[in-house]
Amino acid sequence: MQRFLNDPNDMVDEYVDAYLMTHPLLARAEDNPRVVYRKDIADKVGIVSGGGSGHEPSFLGYLRPNMLDAAAVGEIFASPTPLSFLDAFRKADHGHGVACLFGNYSGDMMNAKAGMLMAKDEGIDVKYVVSKDDIASAPADMKDKRHGIAGLITMWIAGGQVAIHGGDVDAVCQAATEARDNTRSVCVGLHELTIPAVGHPNFHIPDGEYEFGIGHHGESGIRNYKMQPADGIAKRMTDALVEDLGLKSGDEVFVMLSGLGATPLAEQYIMYRAVHKILADQGIKVLFPHIGNLATSLNMNGIALTIEKLTPNLKKWTAAFEAKGTQVDGL
Amino acid sequence: MQRFLNDPNDMVDEYVDAYLMTHPLLARAEDNPRVVYRKDIADKVGIVSGGGSGHEPSFLGYLRPNMLDAAAVGEIFASPTPLSFLDAFRKADHGHGVACLFGNYSGDMMNAKAGMLMAKDEGIDVKYVVSKDDIASAPADMKDKRHGIAGLITMWIAGGQVAIHGGDVDAVCQAATEARDNTRSVCVGLHELTIPAVGHPNFHIPDGEYEFGIGHHGESGIRNYKMQPADGIAKRMTDALVEDLGLKSGDEVFVMLSGLGATPLAEQYIMYRAVHKILADQGIKVLFPHIGNLATSLNMNGIALTIEKLTPNLKKWTAAFEAKGTQVDGL
Repeated sequence: MQRFLNDPNDMVDEYVDAYLMTHPLLARAEDNPRVVYRKDIADKVGIVSGGGSGHEPSFLGYLRPNMLDAAAVGEIFASPTPLSFLDAFRKADHGHGVACLFGNYSGDMMNAKAGMLMAKDEGIDVKYVVSKDDIASAPADMKDKRHGIAGLITMWIAGGQVAIHGGDVDAVCQAATEARDNTRSVCVGLHELTIPAVGHPNFHIPDGEYEFGIGHHGESGIRNYKMQPADGIAKRMTDALVEDLGLKSGDEVFVMLSGLGATPLAEQYIMYRAVHKILADQGIKVLFPHIGNLATSLNMNGIALTIEKLTPNLKKWTAAFEAKGTQVDGL
Repeated sequence: MQRFLNDPNDMVDEYVDAYLMTHPLLARAEDNPRVVYRKDIADKVGIVSGGGSGHEPSFLGYLRPNMLDAAAVGEIFASPTPLSFLDAFRKADHGHGVACLFGNYSGDMMNAKAGMLMAKDEGIDVKYVVSKDDIASAPADMKDKRHGIAGLITMWIAGGQVAIHGGDVDAVCQAATEARDNTRSVCVGLHELTIPAVGHPNFHIPDGEYEFGIGHHGESGIRNYKMQPADGIAKRMTDALVEDLGLKSGDEVFVMLSGLGATPLAEQYIMYRAVHKILADQGIKVLFPHIGNLATSLNMNGIALTIEKLTPNLKKWTAAFEAKGTQVDGL
């Protein structure tokens, strides 16, 4: 395992250190190194997310004036503690309450809820919505069991817009729910990831095969297929999402195609080209495409495809978000 | 080799296709698919670059109102043709001449110069500056032999600012030269790249070692070292640049730490943390840090570190560039 790392146990601390060095508007909570917040939170409903580390630039990259105000940071692929959720709520609350928009995992759910109970005792009004966008994590008739992956981002966009325009906690959560209900994702892997402190992958993708439906935490997928050209892999991913979302000709969509950590950008673009054509051939129009390492899984070589069907509200919020100019990382 | 690719020979075409699908202000030259330009070029000196593909998001990601106006696109790691340089000059020229700011490689130099001769015959005034930032590609007493890698970007920032403020071709080239003369880069590799159409790496980095001074095109480095923690690798890279630039306490710098294609973002940040501390310990202040996949080498797992010493001019231009908000890719 050749990695740019010091002690694997310091990985999260060091990443957060570096993120704060390079983003002067962010700060760590004074008494909790696992909470990062914006110093310039506006007079509005606060938006919090949280989850395990290893998905960089998520979550810290989305601490922006029109997205998240505070994040609870977990260890690699592990939930933040209840206290970290609580401290994030404290930082994000400016008297208008907090919307906690995170991913559907049992650990995150348990700890976020525990944090919410403690926040309630302090008079902070926290409501929550969880994303369940990963279609491979449970079948369509068990949607509530599905995990949240890159689709969390669409909740932050929608909720963020309602918050900056003065919506209350219920309105922000309603917007996030609308985004959540119209968003689906699926991942494929070409080469597995390794958690540095573990030192070996927890599943192996054989040469000559790709794995469809992998999770964002090194979870193995639902099926291996013989390796195909990019167009074939993209077709399998796109078809699955189109079916699950019930997309039809005339629909407009927001698309994120995210590398999972070790996937070259040119290959991501080549995959996007196929997705775009497959959708266009069915009369489905991509209004807002995004390609890049948007939500990753350590050093996984793979791709997450996320499609959001744009309702009139979602189209309006997303257009407003895009018009402001957006940036994760880079130059 | 597990890759998200169709026919390797179509890789460049498909990447450019996808880039145009997602960037509506860009267009291909009508009669030359290897030239991409901005449709909204202002009434100013045009700025052109060009080089081989495989460095995504370079060059297309830097076609921006305050950077490049047109790019000549080569095959993977191969120079664009003289005609592609000429066509890029034609697109970028709005009667004020063109500055061609590219990297010092014999193929690029030969073809760009041939393109310039043809442009001269058409009455287009083209001047050029080549970056020579890669300190590992030749020793300090043979600086003119050094290659240009991620350091090209600092030329585009400086030249771009002078161009949008009405500078003539000479002033733009002078600004680019000032950036070039104050910029140095060095790369390390943990795992080699593979050119898809070749199918195997052209050098191998043994397990347990990292390679210092690799090039941006799969060129092997100048020395292998026993694998070290990130802090040790960062120290070796930073020390080499500090020495070559002659940096001293009180200097202010612009820093780019770029993943080379398959390097996870968290690891890039962990490396940046070390670089920042090493510089700070010597009284050198990073004013503008950038971390991300800024200029890559296909699927190389490695890092390029670039440091620019900020003269008063460079500080002014870079601050103006940063204030506008910047973006390569992503959300």
